[in-house]
Amino acid sequence: MIEIALFGAGRIGKIHAGNLAAHPQVRLRYVIDVHAPSAQALAQQHGASVCSVEQALADPAVGAVVIGSSTDTHADLIQRAAAAGKAIFCEKPVDLDLGRARDCASAVEKAGVVCMIGFQRRFDPTFHALKQRLDAGEIGQPEVLLITSRDPSPPPLDYIARSGGVFKDMLIHDFDVFRWILGEEAVSVYATGSSPGFPEVAAAGDITAAAVTLRTASGALCQINTSRQAAYGYDQRFEVLGSQGLLQAGNLRPTEVVAWGRDAISQDKPEHFFLERYRQAYALELRHFIDALVDHTPVRTSIGDGIKALELAEAAARSWREARIVELP
Amino acid sequence: MIEIALFGAGRIGKIHAGNLAAHPQVRLRYVIDVHAPSAQALAQQHGASVCSVEQALADPAVGAVVIGSSTDTHADLIQRAAAAGKAIFCEKPVDLDLGRARDCASAVEKAGVVCMIGFQRRFDPTFHALKQRLDAGEIGQPEVLLITSRDPSPPPLDYIARSGGVFKDMLIHDFDVFRWILGEEAVSVYATGSSPGFPEVAAAGDITAAAVTLRTASGALCQINTSRQAAYGYDQRFEVLGSQGLLQAGNLRPTEVVAWGRDAISQDKPEHFFLERYRQAYALELRHFIDALVDHTPVRTSIGDGIKALELAEAAARSWREARIVELP
Amino acid sequence: MIEIALFGAGRIGKIHAGNLAAHPQVRLRYVIDVHAPSAQALAQQHGASVCSVEQALADPAVGAVVIGSSTDTHADLIQRAAAAGKAIFCEKPVDLDLGRARDCASAVEKAGVVCMIGFQRRFDPTFHALKQRLDAGEIGQPEVLLITSRDPSPPPLDYIARSGGVFKDMLIHDFDVFRWILGEEAVSVYATGSSPGFPEVAAAGDITAAAVTLRTASGALCQINTSRQAAYGYDQRFEVLGSQGLLQAGNLRPTEVVAWGRDAISQDKPEHFFLERYRQAYALELRHFIDALVDHTPVRTSIGDGIKALELAEAAARSWREARIVELP
Amino acid sequence: MIEIALFGAGRIGKIHAGNLAAHPQVRLRYVIDVHAPSAQALAQQHGASVCSVEQALADPAVGAVVIGSSTDTHADLIQRAAAAGKAIFCEKPVDLDLGRARDCASAVEKAGVVCMIGFQRRFDPTFHALKQRLDAGEIGQPEVLLITSRDPSPPPLDYIARSGGVFKDMLIHDFDVFRWILGEEAVSVYATGSSPGFPEVAAAGDITAAAVTLRTASGALCQINTSRQAAYGYDQRFEVLGSQGLLQAGNLRPTEVVAWGRDAISQDKPEHFFLERYRQAYALELRHFIDALVDHTPVRTSIGDGIKALELAEAAARSWREARIVELP
Repeated sequence: MIEIALFGAGRIGKIHAGNLAAHPQVRLRYVIDVHAPSAQALAQQHGASVCSVEQALADPAVGAVVIGSSTDTHADLIQRAAAAGKAIFCEKPVDLDLGRARDCASAVEKAGVVCMIGFQRRFDPTFHALKQRLDAGEIGQPEVLLITSRDPSPPPLDYIARSGGVFKDMLIHDFDVFRWILGEEAVSVYATGSSPGFPEVAAAGDITAAAVTLRTASGALCQINTSRQAAYGYDQRFEVLGSQGLLQAGNLRPTEVVAWGRDAISQDKPEHFFLERYRQAYALELRHFIDALVDHTPVRTSIGDGIKALELAEAAARSWREARIVELP
Repeated sequence: MIEIALFGAGRIGKIHAGNLAAHPQVRLRYVIDVHAPSAQALAQQHGASVCSVEQALADPAVGAVVIGSSTDTHADLIQRAAAAGKAIFCEKPVDLDLGRARDCASAVEKAGVVCMIGFQRRFDPTFHALKQRLDAGEIGQPEVLLITSRDPSPPPLDYIARSGGVFKDMLIHDFDVFRWILGEEAVSVYATGSSPGFPEVAAAGDITAAAVTLRTASGALCQINTSRQAAYGYDQRFEVLGSQGLLQAGNLRPTEVVAWGRDAISQDKPEHFFLERYRQAYALELRHFIDALVDHTPVRTSIGDGIKALELAEAAARSWREARIVELP
Repeated sequence: MIEIALFGAGRIGKIHAGNLAAHPQVRLRYVIDVHAPSAQALAQQHGASVCSVEQALADPAVGAVVIGSSTDTHADLIQRAAAAGKAIFCEKPVDLDLGRARDCASAVEKAGVVCMIGFQRRFDPTFHALKQRLDAGEIGQPEVLLITSRDPSPPPLDYIARSGGVFKDMLIHDFDVFRWILGEEAVSVYATGSSPGFPEVAAAGDITAAAVTLRTASGALCQINTSRQAAYGYDQRFEVLGSQGLLQAGNLRPTEVVAWGRDAISQDKPEHFFLERYRQAYALELRHFIDALVDHTPVRTSIGDGIKALELAEAAARSWREARIVELP
Repeated sequence: MIEIALFGAGRIGKIHAGNLAAHPQVRLRYVIDVHAPSAQALAQQHGASVCSVEQALADPAVGAVVIGSSTDTHADLIQRAAAAGKAIFCEKPVDLDLGRARDCASAVEKAGVVCMIGFQRRFDPTFHALKQRLDAGEIGQPEVLLITSRDPSPPPLDYIARSGGVFKDMLIHDFDVFRWILGEEAVSVYATGSSPGFPEVAAAGDITAAAVTLRTASGALCQINTSRQAAYGYDQRFEVLGSQGLLQAGNLRPTEVVAWGRDAISQDKPEHFFLERYRQAYALELRHFIDALVDHTPVRTSIGDGIKALELAEAAARSWREARIVELP
């Protein structure tokens, strides 16, 4: 039985709490949140207690921490949890500052603790099945990867201002998908973007739509297009062209109803947003984390993956800001 | 070069004239229609002449006739054309009266002429490909056939009154598909129906919606559902369940545009009606007829097929009218 | 908090136990099964106790029973649970014998207890959404219903022998869907069938493939086709043609991967079998049962629905056996 | 009646000859080809004569020329035909050399003749319908355009060597689609590429896979990905994200057969190659050209469009070769 301290009782914290509850070898012991009523409510629902960060990390019964609090708390919590010898599951990004993120990685390495970063897309059944078929050689050597990644609508402007920009906030997932699917690192990044319909985002020094191109040493090409707004909802697709064929990962739909009317034949829009779209992925990534702890096997998305994705996000942001191609070491 | 006399300058006659024009070994010599201006216009467009039935059949240069005139003229024209030694292509049905249709078959046999009935669906590329894959054994032994056959909206009531009823007018194509796909004859027929929203059709002794079940000697089952009205248009699908899998034939669409909007993801409705849906099928069936004449090979849809489909239509109509299962000899 | 006694610790019992565990207002108190180790294991997993039928029904703390034991135990358990004043959730069918099933309905009525029959398909998100859109008038008046219902492969012959036949065992779900979707009772039933490739089933007096036609008083038509074997797996589709359009309910797929290869473009087969396909439906039906108990609202699938579906199954079996159309009162 | 001289009796020349034959207001008068037997055969099939370039252009009966000969003949024929006052339909590209292409445009302008460039994709029913819906405002303002454009397999190396490179040879169509769909010119181009599996192409100074990003003044983004090889065949898709939704143009399939087998559910691959995929587009573009001549209306794809697409191809090639972003004036 692994006892868990959960940092963050917000939207994603609730998801993680529910998924932890479903695992027979886990007990949620503490919920920690700066907003006391949220911590209280979530703790009560799962038979846990509310405590402070210090208490949680000082309790030897706690085997692992799950960090779902705000981004600016990640680095501190990772470093303190590592120092306390706790296994760590942390939402992306490690930190908005690459230097600080690297410090976290050093701390984790030094402490020798498990640290998994929440790149939940790798656990999505559709994405995961595609990756397995790719690795099994079904389409030969991967040559071109196209990623479409769109949100239904932008977050509030003050969130955007604190978000680290679209490359670190949104595209970081896509950079991880790029590395995971192609199994290679990028040698160059080109990014451009704009903010159609959102002049206030442009004024805040960010963009709402981006087009990114990555190249690997072997010559594989990746195009990512992203947008903070899509009138029809959340859109998460990618396709890989290989030497022997193509594999596509499509969206999920709430139902399989098809309506034939006077104007058109129509089906459901994609699942509304990430909490619905990646519901299974969130469950599977936490199960993987717990199983890795129980079985002493490596986690699939390490803090190293978190650093690498962050490096790509920084490079892409630089490419966009300086309007030039950025070479990677 | 085969010289053709075309009977009927209406909707289907124009289709056939256009398709004949595209065949390099054919010349349209005569157009015959009771409505002189239609005959004149169509003849002129294709460099043909207008003449009487007598003249056309008496002209030794005429090698074949294409009968696309109204149903009540089919039997007479088949018999006279057969007597004149002409090869015959005739639209379905041979005749609304089974006895008269059989007389036509006898006349054709006696004259030893080619006589092809226009079951164009067998030439539709989608239906044809399915049949070839079925015959190649892709899904093993066929066991269950489901046919959906719907018109966008009913014809005028006076047409319905002269049509021979829904079984002879609409379902005759589906009965032919049943025989063609399963490669067996029926041993029993059950039919029921209704006229939802069309009391005037019910009052005229017909129905607008029918559900038919056929059984073959080997135990294969076929369900046909038809309707004279479908708000979304023309619907022509079937699927065959075999011991090793399933083959479906779907509708065609005017374009492959998909729209993702606030409410749904939508694509085009099916092609509007039979002239659009079976455009390629009409071209291919006439090419087959001409090729058969040129190469002295058998036609794929003989007058015998026309008789068999008519027998099923009569049996189904009897089953519906008498509310009983009809056994077939 | 409602305390539950669960009868049956087999495949479906485990599903129900898991779903009960997820409901915050429920406690699984007892697991009862003739196979002691199964009862023990399931009870232990959920913190429940093993006991006898008598003990469970005598315990006043037990508010409701969930019956997932073998079909031949249903009637007895329903009657005893009703006499004990317990709310009842019971898997279909109530009983293979219509008379006994009616006795159960009487017992339930007399006791004034809630009794819900497990027609889980009504709770499937896709089927449920279709029904809601139909009721909202999206396609006008329903006129034609087509149901396809196929299993991946037949159960063992000894199961078939005890199953009550394909109409009571498999089609009972489809008869419920028919009543639910069209919102009307049948006035006539026609059924035919065969056992292609399964002579041993025919020898046992049953069939593996059936084609059923139902008619309602208003003239709505329903065709059901079923098969105990489909090489590609579990197939659960239906479509309703209404005066203003068509609504289709399609299969679910494990993933949304699409592969473009040298021969074809392919996607996943449907979810393997009912436990996967109706996973969400099983969860939602139990939640509905509990919510109905908590909120004192009626259950959506009553024992009366169980009787009605059984009547249709009997009528269809008679139609098939006697090769005649069966009128319903 | 417009009399036509057709230059080129190869693959595309035959397509054009057939489409001209179907137009009632056109007569194919001459076929000109350096390969005499090809010219002879095609002329004979359509009742035309074989002649020299000089004869064709000197004949005052010739109203228009259709240029389907090899790329290196285009510029010369356009200039001579313009000087002779003939209306001109010419396959893309105008010329591989941008300067020469501009000279052609000047010659056309000076002569005041109609000159249409064969960007047939604009006439494809699916692409055309999408453009009309976009212009009708269905998805608001276009913001992101994604184009996928893949050939089944590369042409022979000696063709590639003469082709002007992938940007002028293949992507020129995509550059035209970009300009047409977004209705704006590019302000910057970034291109990268590789030749996975085709070192001989790389050795010849070309690439087989390219990733291009275009930006317009208004901030619209376009990503094009292309490959000279796709194991599954010819792939021609694009999608436009607008402020109110998304429009996708999908591939066409030879048939609508769907097969459900033990491993997957599969449908046809896309139409094999451009002659099949754009069969309707080729017919419609020539009909448009003739109609424009008859009705004295402007052609939709002018020589100016040909120049603009060529400018983008040059800029993209430069971007790729020099590994830098190219700004456009």
